[in-house]
Amino acid sequence: MTREPLFDTVCLIGIGLIGSSLARVIRRKGLARRIVACARRDSTLETVTTLGLADRVTKDHAEAARGADLVVISTPIGTNGMIARAIAPVLKPGQIVTDVGSVKQAVIRDVAPAIPDGVHFVPGHPLAGTEESGPESGFDTLFEGRWCVLTPPCGTAPEAIEKVSELWRRAGSMIDIIDADHHDWVMALTSHLPTLIAFNIVGTVADMENHTRQEVIKYSASGFRDFTRIAAQDPVMWRDVYLNNREAVLEMLQRFSEDLSRLQRAIRWGEGEELEDLFRRSRDIRRGIIDAGQA
Amino acid sequence: MTREPLFDTVCLIGIGLIGSSLARVIRRKGLARRIVACARRDSTLETVTTLGLADRVTKDHAEAARGADLVVISTPIGTNGMIARAIAPVLKPGQIVTDVGSVKQAVIRDVAPAIPDGVHFVPGHPLAGTEESGPESGFDTLFEGRWCVLTPPCGTAPEAIEKVSELWRRAGSMIDIIDADHHDWVMALTSHLPTLIAFNIVGTVADMENHTRQEVIKYSASGFRDFTRIAAQDPVMWRDVYLNNREAVLEMLQRFSEDLSRLQRAIRWGEGEELEDLFRRSRDIRRGIIDAGQA
Repeated sequence: MTREPLFDTVCLIGIGLIGSSLARVIRRKGLARRIVACARRDSTLETVTTLGLADRVTKDHAEAARGADLVVISTPIGTNGMIARAIAPVLKPGQIVTDVGSVKQAVIRDVAPAIPDGVHFVPGHPLAGTEESGPESGFDTLFEGRWCVLTPPCGTAPEAIEKVSELWRRAGSMIDIIDADHHDWVMALTSHLPTLIAFNIVGTVADMENHTRQEVIKYSASGFRDFTRIAAQDPVMWRDVYLNNREAVLEMLQRFSEDLSRLQRAIRWGEGEELEDLFRRSRDIRRGIIDAGQA
Repeated sequence: MTREPLFDTVCLIGIGLIGSSLARVIRRKGLARRIVACARRDSTLETVTTLGLADRVTKDHAEAARGADLVVISTPIGTNGMIARAIAPVLKPGQIVTDVGSVKQAVIRDVAPAIPDGVHFVPGHPLAGTEESGPESGFDTLFEGRWCVLTPPCGTAPEAIEKVSELWRRAGSMIDIIDADHHDWVMALTSHLPTLIAFNIVGTVADMENHTRQEVIKYSASGFRDFTRIAAQDPVMWRDVYLNNREAVLEMLQRFSEDLSRLQRAIRWGEGEELEDLFRRSRDIRRGIIDAGQA
C-alpha cells in the first residue's frame, strides 16, 4: 500500500551521515515530494547531487528553508543557533523545524528564541550512527529498530510533534518523548562519556613515540581496535557535544573516575574477588541489551 | 596439496573460545592426528564430545598430557602454574608445552620452573577473540589474519619455537617473536587498559538505580553498547590478567588518568580547540589500523 507523502518539501540543513540517511529513507519510502539540501561546502553539494539525494541544493540556509514544510537541522550543534537566526526571516506559520543533535537543552536554548510565532520547533535526537561521516556514508536503514528521542518544550503543538514522530516511525524508529534535561543526563552516561573515554584512550596512544604507536596499531585486534572505531567519529560534532553538555558530562566523568580509582586500588592490592565481582555484573548489563534488541 | 600433520597428538588443556577454535582449525586442516581435550567441568567435556572437537576427553591434566607431542594450556592464567606442576611428572623430553595467555612474564614465572629438562616450553599469545566464551563459541577462522606473539625465554630450542610457529601459521596467523616484558607492556596498553576501562564504564552504569539502568540499556545504541560487548568477556580470565600484569596496567592507568584530567579541564573551561585537536588525532590512529589490515 502506497501512502501519501508526509510532507511536500523537506529541507535538510547539513547532510552528513544522519542527514543523508534521512534523505535516503525519505526517497525510498516516498515520505516527501521534494528534498532540498543545504551544506557549507561545494564538494558536499556535488556529492549530494551525484548521489541523487536532493531535488535542489544550495549553500544558503534561508533559501533552503523557504517554503519547506519541515526543516531538519543536522549540523554540529554549535552551529544550530546561527542557522535558526539565518532561516527565521523566511519561516512562515505552520512550518516545522526539528534537529538531530545529541544535546537538547543547549539546542533549545540556542534555537527556540529565533523561531517566529506560529512556527513549530520539535527538538529531536535519533540514537543511531556509525563511525563514518559525510553524505557518502549514509544508508536508508540506519534508523531501523533504533530509538528516536523527542524533547519538545511545554506548549509545543501536538500535531507538529506527531508529524515529526511519524517521519521517524516511517524511517523505522521507535519514538520516546522525554524532558530535555533528562535526555542530556542519560546521554552523558550512555553516549558522551563512553565516546570521551574512547577518544582519551586513543589519545593516550597517539601521544606515544612513533615506534610504540606502530606496535599498538599492529596489535590492535587485542581490544584497542574497538575504541578506535568509536574515536573515529566526527571531531567537530563531538567537540560541540562536550562544549554544550558540560555539567552532565563532568558529573559522569566524576563518577567514572571514582569507580576507576576503586578498580585501580583492587589491582594494586591484588583483590581478585572484587575484580571478578565487578566483571560479572558487566555481563548482566550486556544480557539486558541483547534482551532489549539493541545489541 | 595435503600436508603431513604437524603433530601426532595435541593436548588442549582448557577448551573455551581459544582452545576450541584451535581444535576446529586443527581438525579442518589436519594439523594433528589426534586431539585430547581436558576441562574442569563435565558439562564442558560433554559439549566437546557432542561437537566432535576431540578424540578423547578427560578431567585429569596429567592423563591428558601424557604422550602428547604438544600440550596447549588455554585456561585463565592464574591456573597455569598449577597445571604445569600437575603435568610435569608425565612429561618426557621432546614434548612441547605452549600456552595462549594474555600475560607472558607471569606465565613464564609460574610455568617454566615446573617444566622438566628436555621438555620445551614456548609461551604464546594469539591476539584474537570475541566477547563470547566456552567451547560452543569457537570457530575455525578465529586466528586468520591475526598476530600470534611468541615470547620464548633465552635458550628455548629453535625447533620447538618453529613447530609452535608453524601451528599458528597454518591456523592463518602471522608470527611475532618478542620479549615477554615488552609483550606485557604493549598488551597493557592495547588490551588490558581498554578492557578495564570498558568494565569500569559498564560498572558505573551497573551501580545506577534500576530505572536509570533500564534507560541506559534502552538507549545503548548511542555508544554504550560497544563497551558492553567488550565488558561481556570472561570475568575469571580478565581477573587473572589484572592480577598478573599489575605494574604495567597501573602504569597505563596512570597515563590514561592524566590524559583524562586534561580532557576534563578542557571541557570545564570550554577549550574547543584542544578538544577538536585531540579528536582529530584519534582519527589518524584509526586510519593506521585500517591500513594495517587489522580493522
